[in-house]
Amino acid sequence: MIDTAAYFERWRAGEAQLAGEPPRMLPLMERLWPICRSITGDGVRQTLDIIGDCVTLVRESVPSGTQCFDWIVPPEWNIRDAYVKDASGRRVIDFQQSNLHVVGYSTPVSGRFTLEALQPHLHSLPSMPDAIPYRTSYYRPTWGFCLRHADRERLADGEYEVHIDSTLEPGQLDFAQSVIAGRGREVLLSTYICHPSLAQNELSGPVLLTTLMQQLSALPEGRFGYRGVFTPETIGTIAFLSRHYESLNERIAAGFVVTCVGDDGPYTYVRSKRGATLADRAAEHVLAHVHGDREVSVRPFDPVGSDERQFCSPGINWPVGSLMRSRHGEYREYHTSLDDLSYVSETGLQRSLCAYLRILQVIEINCRPLRTRPHGEPQLGRYGLYTSMVTASVDEWIRRLLHVLSFADGDHDLIAIAEGLGVPVWELLPTLEGLAGADLITLND
Amino acid sequence: MIDTAAYFERWRAGEAQLAGEPPRMLPLMERLWPICRSITGDGVRQTLDIIGDCVTLVRESVPSGTQCFDWIVPPEWNIRDAYVKDASGRRVIDFQQSNLHVVGYSTPVSGRFTLEALQPHLHSLPSMPDAIPYRTSYYRPTWGFCLRHADRERLADGEYEVHIDSTLEPGQLDFAQSVIAGRGREVLLSTYICHPSLAQNELSGPVLLTTLMQQLSALPEGRFGYRGVFTPETIGTIAFLSRHYESLNERIAAGFVVTCVGDDGPYTYVRSKRGATLADRAAEHVLAHVHGDREVSVRPFDPVGSDERQFCSPGINWPVGSLMRSRHGEYREYHTSLDDLSYVSETGLQRSLCAYLRILQVIEINCRPLRTRPHGEPQLGRYGLYTSMVTASVDEWIRRLLHVLSFADGDHDLIAIAEGLGVPVWELLPTLEGLAGADLITLND
Amino acid sequence: MIDTAAYFERWRAGEAQLAGEPPRMLPLMERLWPICRSITGDGVRQTLDIIGDCVTLVRESVPSGTQCFDWIVPPEWNIRDAYVKDASGRRVIDFQQSNLHVVGYSTPVSGRFTLEALQPHLHSLPSMPDAIPYRTSYYRPTWGFCLRHADRERLADGEYEVHIDSTLEPGQLDFAQSVIAGRGREVLLSTYICHPSLAQNELSGPVLLTTLMQQLSALPEGRFGYRGVFTPETIGTIAFLSRHYESLNERIAAGFVVTCVGDDGPYTYVRSKRGATLADRAAEHVLAHVHGDREVSVRPFDPVGSDERQFCSPGINWPVGSLMRSRHGEYREYHTSLDDLSYVSETGLQRSLCAYLRILQVIEINCRPLRTRPHGEPQLGRYGLYTSMVTASVDEWIRRLLHVLSFADGDHDLIAIAEGLGVPVWELLPTLEGLAGADLITLND
Repeated sequence: MIDTAAYFERWRAGEAQLAGEPPRMLPLMERLWPICRSITGDGVRQTLDIIGDCVTLVRESVPSGTQCFDWIVPPEWNIRDAYVKDASGRRVIDFQQSNLHVVGYSTPVSGRFTLEALQPHLHSLPSMPDAIPYRTSYYRPTWGFCLRHADRERLADGEYEVHIDSTLEPGQLDFAQSVIAGRGREVLLSTYICHPSLAQNELSGPVLLTTLMQQLSALPEGRFGYRGVFTPETIGTIAFLSRHYESLNERIAAGFVVTCVGDDGPYTYVRSKRGATLADRAAEHVLAHVHGDREVSVRPFDPVGSDERQFCSPGINWPVGSLMRSRHGEYREYHTSLDDLSYVSETGLQRSLCAYLRILQVIEINCRPLRTRPHGEPQLGRYGLYTSMVTASVDEWIRRLLHVLSFADGDHDLIAIAEGLGVPVWELLPTLEGLAGADLITLND
Repeated sequence: MIDTAAYFERWRAGEAQLAGEPPRMLPLMERLWPICRSITGDGVRQTLDIIGDCVTLVRESVPSGTQCFDWIVPPEWNIRDAYVKDASGRRVIDFQQSNLHVVGYSTPVSGRFTLEALQPHLHSLPSMPDAIPYRTSYYRPTWGFCLRHADRERLADGEYEVHIDSTLEPGQLDFAQSVIAGRGREVLLSTYICHPSLAQNELSGPVLLTTLMQQLSALPEGRFGYRGVFTPETIGTIAFLSRHYESLNERIAAGFVVTCVGDDGPYTYVRSKRGATLADRAAEHVLAHVHGDREVSVRPFDPVGSDERQFCSPGINWPVGSLMRSRHGEYREYHTSLDDLSYVSETGLQRSLCAYLRILQVIEINCRPLRTRPHGEPQLGRYGLYTSMVTASVDEWIRRLLHVLSFADGDHDLIAIAEGLGVPVWELLPTLEGLAGADLITLND
Repeated sequence: MIDTAAYFERWRAGEAQLAGEPPRMLPLMERLWPICRSITGDGVRQTLDIIGDCVTLVRESVPSGTQCFDWIVPPEWNIRDAYVKDASGRRVIDFQQSNLHVVGYSTPVSGRFTLEALQPHLHSLPSMPDAIPYRTSYYRPTWGFCLRHADRERLADGEYEVHIDSTLEPGQLDFAQSVIAGRGREVLLSTYICHPSLAQNELSGPVLLTTLMQQLSALPEGRFGYRGVFTPETIGTIAFLSRHYESLNERIAAGFVVTCVGDDGPYTYVRSKRGATLADRAAEHVLAHVHGDREVSVRPFDPVGSDERQFCSPGINWPVGSLMRSRHGEYREYHTSLDDLSYVSETGLQRSLCAYLRILQVIEINCRPLRTRPHGEPQLGRYGLYTSMVTASVDEWIRRLLHVLSFADGDHDLIAIAEGLGVPVWELLPTLEGLAGADLITLND
């Protein structure tokens, strides 16, 4: 049985927070923007340093060469400079101009190449001649440069000086957690920090999750704890899981991969693999009510996704979905230099933040009401419950009272009851308070 | 295993009854019309007296002040006269003209009021100026008058003599049951008797249920018993349940709240809260076949309903639905003086009666046929079953035989088999008789 | 756990067979065409002799008078000649012209009849005046002739000499099985051999099944055995079941009644009574992918079917469906002399054969893949699985790998995974081989 005082205090605080002005997130994104991140290296650590200025982080590192489930942590990669100079000594490709110019995990190289010899190491997009593509080669040693196709077309025959000042050496993989304690199980919130200067995919993820953890910290303790995970995609998530899966497995009640939340495109929700989990039901309830007039795409679990691939792998199968705006791989600017700070917006970030806060609020308040004396309906007049100042009409107030009382049978949770009523679950606060205050219902996990 | 002789005798008798002319019900409604009913008082007892002239009733009374589940039985209300006289001594509002003129459970009052002081005690409908609204205040002591808005507009300023000769004193709540014994569990049929002169909601209910019990009494004993309950809405049903819930709980196989069955509007069926119960399946099967060409509305359980709110409350949750025509709250004349004898019709009542009789017939005949020797199909020719005088064609006769034989597997009841065939279940009489007569199937509950 | 070497060998062999030229079947049908079959007699034995020339048969006979479940095997019927001669001695109806001219199981008769006395023994179709109808009377002794209605109209008044040289004597009912051993349970393939010269219904059935058994024999041993049953419809199937039901019941994993597969009409699949069985899922998967552009009719179990009536009777309820082209009773020529060799085609037979081979291939290859180390996804690059020569694009190859890995959880079989991917299950061969070869998955029944 839920402690109703704490429950309603948290509910009210959550509503007040949602009613307020959402915090600005672009300044944090701008701070993280210039860093050259990869799956290992200084960029990851600098990123965690900055996030650690905003929320309390518990950081971990896994040495290169460590086996994590089926994977082996690769050597650590760091890069200081890289360029291609033409015969005149001009940097025609320059890492200092954009960290996308170098293929991630490029091995060091220094030498002179004819254009013909250089071509196999160049990557560009003929269909998007003004965009630098983003490429990596984490596990197959090679080197390369990415450039605008328009620039590539202008390269003259002749010899070029090629230089990549990188190191691939034993080091470590870094990740961090930010944990807010709750009275019961936990909600997992995961994002990744392994892309260089890319805004929608990826910086919107860590920026929004950092802000989300700040917002959650400002609320009274809830029924659920909240675990924010900041880690390189795939290998970082696998390292995190290989270390913490056993101890967390029973604790995870719901989870979300937070990514692609910075533009103001239509919402895309990808369900957990199990489907119809608490995560899915809460997210779909929110999307139905908050963004009913905008196009929303709700989809089954997709094995070609982001880190939900790991969280929903057969041996783990946590109830983890992902709420996004324009999804990775589905917007034109994805994985190119056009996915920059101008692609995202404060409005987009703030709306995404509110959607996540709303979903977590729904998870917090979802409970199973249970009639204390369940035979017949209660004599509402005896409890002063026949009128309310809150809902528009007495009829609607009574309708909500009767719906909750009727379905307070242990088989229906609040989301189910709200959907039967056709109202957002968070509008049921006065109804629940009235009924619980009169001892007509108890609230249960 | 069902006694097939009794089963088929009852089936045939039910078909014969349905093939006959339905009895007239308006005379009984006209007899009940003038009585001023409320949830307690002489009007309820007079109503039960008249119904008791038609069917055998077992009457009960519950003293004022008795706790019934969460409710307390209120004092008994009786009224003899009530009026508002203008300065000239003319009764401008007169209980003798219509018992709707007085708010139900009005406390006694006698005195002189200015129009201004009187106004808060007057109720009218600006949108329906020629209708007297129906109002009550059972549990909050007050008094008031209801009148046509057109008449209210004509009230001149000045002083009025106000008189309500009512009593609110310790007394009793009355209800009654009419029980027809059967060989097995029971079907509950409940209606309410607490509204003054209102035809569709409510007199159509007790009038139809009285006639239904008469019709059922004329049939041979069935597999089910039938329990008709005549009781004031809400408090009466709660009183009935608080007394009989324990002993009846295991016995109730299906049930219906009989109300709003007097006009000839489209059928509305509201499902039991569990859904897909025997009550629901029988009612929906009948509506699909009998009224396939008329608009029919089948809806999920609605907590803002009539007495099914009590029957389906979490602690009780009986399989009780409600078949209506124009539903309470959904037709313009509802709870006004326009819901009078001209609103209902003999045709409407008779069609509703036949629909209920048909539903109960479906419940009676629904059984699970079971093959006696279930391997392969039987050699029908050896049993003389290859032809029949009944169905239009030999092909259709064989199709029905084979369907029943094929699904006589214990997993399918007769409703399911009939729906697979696309025919009304009651047309399977010769098929069932042929197969049971040849000992190819047994019939089972 | 499945032996993957044998599994993939069989898969490849099946694909190779399906890629090849299908065998011709009309020659076998032409050989079987002239025989006058009935449910017993020399015609059945001659038919089994010819089929036995093509595949190994185990033949059985059941003496007349034997009880099989609810049925009694009738006397054996044989016929040598039959005619109706007019006054001039001309055979106006002549069994030598068509074996359809005599009602099946006609008792012997020899005598002179006026046209008027003869008429009750004549059968024709006024609506199809150029077709000889097909009629039998197995269990009600009588005699009769079938003829074109146009010819019947031309019969002059007068006396006719009637002669049926038939015998109805104690004998036997014949049927046969052709069994291909497998490593596990069995797929039942049943067809009937009791109709005289009729092509679509029936000869297409035994001809296709004979060829299907030949094709299956040419493949390496599979996970399933295959049991072909050639038996007279209804009584023969009941006799087969009464002898073998007990020993086979646990072994039957799926089954099909093979009939009406000779024309090139749209596919009709009738589901097993249970529905969603392996038989149904395999057949529907094949029809969705192979004949997506042709009209396909998938229907629930129909108790007015062929031998699936017996296989799916309540006491047996095997997972047996039926894939047909134009279905018995649904094409104009059905059960008339117009259902002749010109009605069917080699193309129709071959396409039907390939559809059945494809369905059986799907049943063979359907398995449940299971991740060996199920936490997180495997590091595909370590296994050389990031590229493939087979599918069109790397993206599609990765998509398939990730789908199989993600759903290799024991809850999804290969059909389910393929349907999630939207690809035919048989296209997953390289994906499965790659993953199983790298020991990333095991394959399971």
